[in-house]
Amino acid sequence: MSIEALTEVDDGPRSKRPAILAAAVECFGETGYEGTKWSAVADRVGIGQTALYHYFESKAHCLLTVMRLGLRNSDVAFREATDGAPTALAGLRAAVGAAYALSPQDVQQNRILVANIGLLAGARVSAREESEREACRVLVARVERNWVELIERGIADGEFPDRDPQVMARSLLGLIVGVWRWYRPGGPLDLADISTFVEGCAVRMIAGRDETP
Amino acid sequence: MSIEALTEVDDGPRSKRPAILAAAVECFGETGYEGTKWSAVADRVGIGQTALYHYFESKAHCLLTVMRLGLRNSDVAFREATDGAPTALAGLRAAVGAAYALSPQDVQQNRILVANIGLLAGARVSAREESEREACRVLVARVERNWVELIERGIADGEFPDRDPQVMARSLLGLIVGVWRWYRPGGPLDLADISTFVEGCAVRMIAGRDETP
Repeated sequence: MSIEALTEVDDGPRSKRPAILAAAVECFGETGYEGTKWSAVADRVGIGQTALYHYFESKAHCLLTVMRLGLRNSDVAFREATDGAPTALAGLRAAVGAAYALSPQDVQQNRILVANIGLLAGARVSAREESEREACRVLVARVERNWVELIERGIADGEFPDRDPQVMARSLLGLIVGVWRWYRPGGPLDLADISTFVEGCAVRMIAGRDETP
Repeated sequence: MSIEALTEVDDGPRSKRPAILAAAVECFGETGYEGTKWSAVADRVGIGQTALYHYFESKAHCLLTVMRLGLRNSDVAFREATDGAPTALAGLRAAVGAAYALSPQDVQQNRILVANIGLLAGARVSAREESEREACRVLVARVERNWVELIERGIADGEFPDRDPQVMARSLLGLIVGVWRWYRPGGPLDLADISTFVEGCAVRMIAGRDETP
């Protein structure tokens, strides 16, 4: 899963792109994006600067790619978890569960995404960075849309009270991704416990049911 | 309120610091921190580079000060809103209300804080930047502690079901500050409506009561 999560369809078997991205996730996750020297990423992969620049023109270009792949993985995981859910409530529980069924590398990727989300606000001068930024913004909108549609289904089926689905989806996403502001792999709290906790919060918030301890 | 919110006790009446901070909030809010040229802040205040550097040694130093004052204001607003609340539930409602009873400048300050929170993760080389970063981290912990204590009171008084107060406080903060990822002053949604909406979510999430529409 580790390298797959950072691989794209057009990466050949000899591409160093996934390994560079994995090293960048480690570096940005450990010392922060600002605190990471771009050359440290090359050192960790064991390649030279020339090879590094063949794949990424800048540290920001690499970060934006890490963010885009994290968003892509979230979008795919949501669909896989909710496809075939018998009710919107079951879909809600499954989607929250999928948001936390992650490897330590996936967790770092989400932490990097949340910590640097401000980078998506302003246009980039470089064309390749701007292309990644725009792809990130499309995916942010798609992920939000996934949650909106799930809530709309629940309202249409009479499972959830009729509250603004977009504001509700955004509130729910704030709750779910807020975890990446403070959770660290290997910390005192188990990710499975956090998942159960947030699932209970989400069900109470959206369905108004208080069932989960 | 506009300048007060950016003033410190040791700012004399002739200090240009609050005006510089107000200009920085406008610039960072409009074009993002990354997208703002440091010289653009001086231009907006109508001062030269020398005067600018008298107060802030770098754009990051200025950003960290904006973040610290935003956190200070949140801490003060929480205490003012909850002091004398007759019940924990009343305190919860008042605290959520206070989190959104903000001027457009306060909103921009919160948006900047959330978008750049990753900057607090890694140590700064500069001593003045590092001092602001550490002060920010102390305030982040204090704000979280405010919410934990409110939830603990509700549990002790039997108003709220007994769920981990720290994880609950962090979940609640994710919900509340998540709004600054997407809300913009002058956008289609009214801040007062968002406040009512989030208050309802918070009450359902924490107290398990479904009363607010």
